Amino acid sequence: MRFATWMTHAQGSAIREILKVTVDPQIISLAGGLPAPELFPVDLIDQAFRETLAQEGQAALQYTTTEGDPELRQTLAARLARRGIRVAPEGIALCHGSQQALDLLAKIFLDGNDLVLTESPTYLGALQAFYPYGPRVRAVPCDSGGIRLDALQAELERERPKFLYVMPTYSNPGGTTLAPERRPGLLALCAEYGVPIVEDDPYGELYYDDIPVSPLKALDTQGIVIYSGTASKILAPGLRLGWIAAAPDIIRRVNLAMQGAGLHVGTLLQRAVARVLADDALDAHLTVLRASYRRRRDAMLGAMDRLFPPRITWTRPGGGMFLWVTMPEGNDSLALLQDAIQRQVAFVPGRPFCPDGSGSNSFRLNFSHPSPERIEEGIARLGGLLSERIK
Amino acid sequence: MRFATWMTHAQGSAIREILKVTVDPQIISLAGGLPAPELFPVDLIDQAFRETLAQEGQAALQYTTTEGDPELRQTLAARLARRGIRVAPEGIALCHGSQQALDLLAKIFLDGNDLVLTESPTYLGALQAFYPYGPRVRAVPCDSGGIRLDALQAELERERPKFLYVMPTYSNPGGTTLAPERRPGLLALCAEYGVPIVEDDPYGELYYDDIPVSPLKALDTQGIVIYSGTASKILAPGLRLGWIAAAPDIIRRVNLAMQGAGLHVGTLLQRAVARVLADDALDAHLTVLRASYRRRRDAMLGAMDRLFPPRITWTRPGGGMFLWVTMPEGNDSLALLQDAIQRQVAFVPGRPFCPDGSGSNSFRLNFSHPSPERIEEGIARLGGLLSERIK
Repeated sequence: MRFATWMTHAQGSAIREILKVTVDPQIISLAGGLPAPELFPVDLIDQAFRETLAQEGQAALQYTTTEGDPELRQTLAARLARRGIRVAPEGIALCHGSQQALDLLAKIFLDGNDLVLTESPTYLGALQAFYPYGPRVRAVPCDSGGIRLDALQAELERERPKFLYVMPTYSNPGGTTLAPERRPGLLALCAEYGVPIVEDDPYGELYYDDIPVSPLKALDTQGIVIYSGTASKILAPGLRLGWIAAAPDIIRRVNLAMQGAGLHVGTLLQRAVARVLADDALDAHLTVLRASYRRRRDAMLGAMDRLFPPRITWTRPGGGMFLWVTMPEGNDSLALLQDAIQRQVAFVPGRPFCPDGSGSNSFRLNFSHPSPERIEEGIARLGGLLSERIK
Repeated sequence: MRFATWMTHAQGSAIREILKVTVDPQIISLAGGLPAPELFPVDLIDQAFRETLAQEGQAALQYTTTEGDPELRQTLAARLARRGIRVAPEGIALCHGSQQALDLLAKIFLDGNDLVLTESPTYLGALQAFYPYGPRVRAVPCDSGGIRLDALQAELERERPKFLYVMPTYSNPGGTTLAPERRPGLLALCAEYGVPIVEDDPYGELYYDDIPVSPLKALDTQGIVIYSGTASKILAPGLRLGWIAAAPDIIRRVNLAMQGAGLHVGTLLQRAVARVLADDALDAHLTVLRASYRRRRDAMLGAMDRLFPPRITWTRPGGGMFLWVTMPEGNDSLALLQDAIQRQVAFVPGRPFCPDGSGSNSFRLNFSHPSPERIEEGIARLGGLLSERIK
C-alpha cells in the first residue's frame, strides 16, 4: 500500500513513548495536559444528559444539520458576548473539540507548500493538525509580551501566509499572554496584509488574577479573526465539543468541510451542553475552578521560587494550565527528562513545540492536574535534579 | 483571504437547497437518509449514560487515548466476530461516525491528483470526504451484481489507484449488494494489484431477507480490506460513533491522523456505547428494527409494483434504507423533482451520486423514515406524476 506523503514524516512521538511510564502513580507527572477530574461538574453534566434524553430523546438521537443546534449556538453567542465578542448564532460553527477546529481550518485554507505563521513555542496539536495538509510552518520571533510586531511585519513583507495561528491568552505551552497593548497593532498589521488570524482560546476563562484578558476577537472590527473555543476546559474534555466564531463566509466554508469530515457534532451532546451552558450553576463552577487552579499555580510558582537553582527562568502565567521553563543554553531538556523519570517526576521537553528549531533547553510544566501537595513534591524533586545537573 | 484550491469547486448543493422545503410536514419526503426516530432505543441509551456518569463520571469526562476505550474495542471485536470478521481490539480505531472514517482514510492515503476508484452510483458523503484531498475519482462500471470484475481489472491495468471504495452490502444509494459469488474474485484482484479496499458497511446488520450477507472483510485473509462500521444505524446517528477494523499498520496511521483531527472520540460516548453494545437487549432491538424496516421496504416495493408506470425499473434491496429508480434515457430526475415537490412528495436526484456523469435519469428513494402509510401515499403521488411525465 502507498500512503500520503505527509505520513513519511509522521513518526509517532519519541517523547510520548518516554512519557508512557507516567501512568505509574509513583511518578509525579507535571507533563500531562489534563484538567483535574475531581473538579469536573459531573452532576451538572449528568442532569443535562438525563433531562435531554427524558424530554427529547428521539430528536436528540437523530441526525441534525451540520450547522447544529440553534439553541446551543445562541447560548454560545451569549457567553462570547460577555467576553466582548459580538457574533450572531449563524457566525458559530461546531466541531469535535477545538482540535477538530484546527483540522477544519487547515482544510479550508491550505494547499501543499502554503505558508502558516505561528508563535514559538506554539501548541503542538496545531502543528499535528496542519502537517497533513503539507504547509511550511514558520515561527515569528516572540518575547515576553508575545509575538514581536516588527518581526511579524518583516515576515509578512517577505511572504504572505495563508494565516497566522496564535494562542494569545495563557498559552499552551508557554503560559504567556500577548500583551494587551500589542493586540490592536497585531490586528492592524494582519488586516493591512490581508492575513486572517486563527485565535485559539481554550484557556481564556481560566484566569487567576484580577482582570481577565479580552480575546483578540473582541477587538476585531474587520472580521479577520477566526476564534476557536472549547468546552474541554470549562466543562470537561471527554465531551469533545468545540466551536469556531468567525465571519459568515468562513463559517459556511468550515461547515462545508465538516460535512465531509464527520457530518455534525453529536446531537445529544449538543443538546446536553446547551443545557449546561445556559445554567447559572456553570458560573459558580467556574469560580470554584479558578480558585482551585490558582492555588495550584501559586503552589508551583512558590515552590519554584524556593527550590529551583539560579540561572533557570520561567513564565508566570496569569491563567491556563501551563508554564514554561528555560535553562541556560547548552542544557538539554530531553536528556534531563530521562533523569527526571528516574527521580519519579516528569515534564514535557520543549523542542517539539518550536517550529523554529529552538526549545531544546526548555520544558513545559502542568499545574492543573496534580494536587498542590504533589506539585510541591514534584518541584522539589525537579529542583534537586536541576541543582545537580544544570550547566 | 485565500482558500484551499478544492474550495473553488465546492459550492453548496443545489439539491440540498431544493430539499429544504421538505421540512413542511405536508410533503412526504422519500428523500432523506434518516432512520426512524420512533425506533431509537432511547431507554437503552439513557440507561447507559446514567450508569456511566453515576459509576465512573470523572473518568468518563476526562481525556482518553486516541486509540480509545479497550472495553469498547473488545465489545466491537466480539460483535464483528459474529459477522465473520476476525480482528483484535488493537485492530479497531474509533472515530466520529463513519463519515469521519472516510475523511481519515482519505487523509492517510491521498495526495493531490491520486486516483480513487468507486462504484457508480456511490455514497455521496464519501465523495465529499475525498474531494478536499484533491484526488481524481473514477467509477468502475457496475451491473445488478455490483462492480464488474472485468471492468475493474481493466481499470487496474490502466492505472493503480490508492484505494477502491465500495459499499458492497445494501448500498446507499443503490440498494444493491455485491453478489456473494463475486466477492472472492474482487479480493483476489485487488490483492494481485496491491490495492486496498475500503469497505463501508453502515447497513450490514439491517438485513430483511433470510440470510444476512457477510462483509467482504470476513473473507479477507491478506489484510487488504479496511472495514468501516457505525453505531448510526443500529443505535442512533445522533451519537456520532464509527469504527474502522483493519491491519495494525493502517490502524496506527488512522490514529496518527485522528490525533490531529479531533484527538479522540468523546470518552463518555465511548463508555456509554460500550455498555449498550454489551447488552443483550441490543439484539432484541435489532430484531424489532429489522421487522419494522422490512415492512416499510415491502410497503414501498408493493406500492411501486402497483402504481409505477411501465419502463421504470428499480432495485429490490435485501436490506438497508434505500432503493434506486431508473427512468428511460432522456428523462431528467432533477426536473422531475421540481414537479414532485408541487405534488408534495420528494426524492433525491441521481446525478450527484455518479462520478462517471451518469444518473440524471435515476433517483434515490428512502423507506426507513416514513411510516408504511406515508410511503404508500408518497409512492401513489410519485406514480401519478411519473405516469404523466415519463418519456
